[in-house]
Amino acid sequence: MPTTPSPHAARRSERSRRAIFDASLALVGEVGYPRLTIEGIASRAGVGKQTIYRWWPSKAAVLLDAFTEGVESYGEGLPDTGDLAADLKYVLRATCDEFNDPAFQAPYRALAAAGAADEELSRAFVARLLEPGFAVYEARLRAARDAGEIAPDADPRIVTEMLLSPFSQRWLMRTGELTHAYTDTLVDLVLRAVRPHD
Amino acid sequence: MPTTPSPHAARRSERSRRAIFDASLALVGEVGYPRLTIEGIASRAGVGKQTIYRWWPSKAAVLLDAFTEGVESYGEGLPDTGDLAADLKYVLRATCDEFNDPAFQAPYRALAAAGAADEELSRAFVARLLEPGFAVYEARLRAARDAGEIAPDADPRIVTEMLLSPFSQRWLMRTGELTHAYTDTLVDLVLRAVRPHD
Repeated sequence: MPTTPSPHAARRSERSRRAIFDASLALVGEVGYPRLTIEGIASRAGVGKQTIYRWWPSKAAVLLDAFTEGVESYGEGLPDTGDLAADLKYVLRATCDEFNDPAFQAPYRALAAAGAADEELSRAFVARLLEPGFAVYEARLRAARDAGEIAPDADPRIVTEMLLSPFSQRWLMRTGELTHAYTDTLVDLVLRAVRPHD
Repeated sequence: MPTTPSPHAARRSERSRRAIFDASLALVGEVGYPRLTIEGIASRAGVGKQTIYRWWPSKAAVLLDAFTEGVESYGEGLPDTGDLAADLKYVLRATCDEFNDPAFQAPYRALAAAGAADEELSRAFVARLLEPGFAVYEARLRAARDAGEIAPDADPRIVTEMLLSPFSQRWLMRTGELTHAYTDTLVDLVLRAVRPHD
């Protein structure tokens, strides 16, 4: 039978976990994914590398857990004030600020780059981070469709891509600034595309 | 004074150039960008590596030239039959077929992955391949705006991103199929977003 850890051991584990996540996010931003190692993370976190190997099979697994825990929880979904345009603008402005923050940007870019070169990591990245992000937009759009705010034939998935993919590509390829004016314009255009038919 | 090459030497140079491009595209698809080497390209192309170094400073430079020459020329721009929806659907269906072709896909994916990890390569990739592609859409949209087909305040750049970024992200992250039905739907939605104001 597994033993229940004492409260003291549980606190220590949680502290180690947190230190490992912080170390992996900081390091991947500094050295890039190819040069990130379990040894490096252990050393920066002040834990033995066996502690890491006991919990995670690979550096990719550590990083995905660290990142998933770090990004804002999607559990609550998008705000729903009944005003779809206002809700989407609010969330996309916040996302804009996040992607313009160097502390967020470095590890996320490293992860995206590693994912582009490694199909397995890419699929994990998509399943753990991208799809849950898409899902909250799709849910908000379905609610808007049910409320008659957008056309009944508007596909929530495609509408979500029209909102988020231009933003993502600008960031990933550095092809333009991410500003509140830009995300507001995207929201206005996309909502014109799906407004209920006359 | 530089000497003019004889017609014979010019033909031989052109043959070598072509062989180097073919070899670099084939190899990057097979081994990935990190393991691509000038030696490997030279060996596959049947030329000495000094031949390559005489013309290009790096493997990135070879690959960008090879790719730029390989993709369809943007020189003529998008078709302009006077029917914007039909023209956009025609071109995006063709792009769809191209991105679903493994021979095109492997080197382009390798280049995109390398670009995600290497800012200098990324900027060259954007300047040489992505921006010229965007520019032909922007030009076609400006023509449509001048013809009163789309709203006068529609920003051709943002409209282009709404058409191309969802497509690019689906392909890069493997988050959905690229089908003619998908690109037709994107065109219809985007044109609803920018139709002239009532």
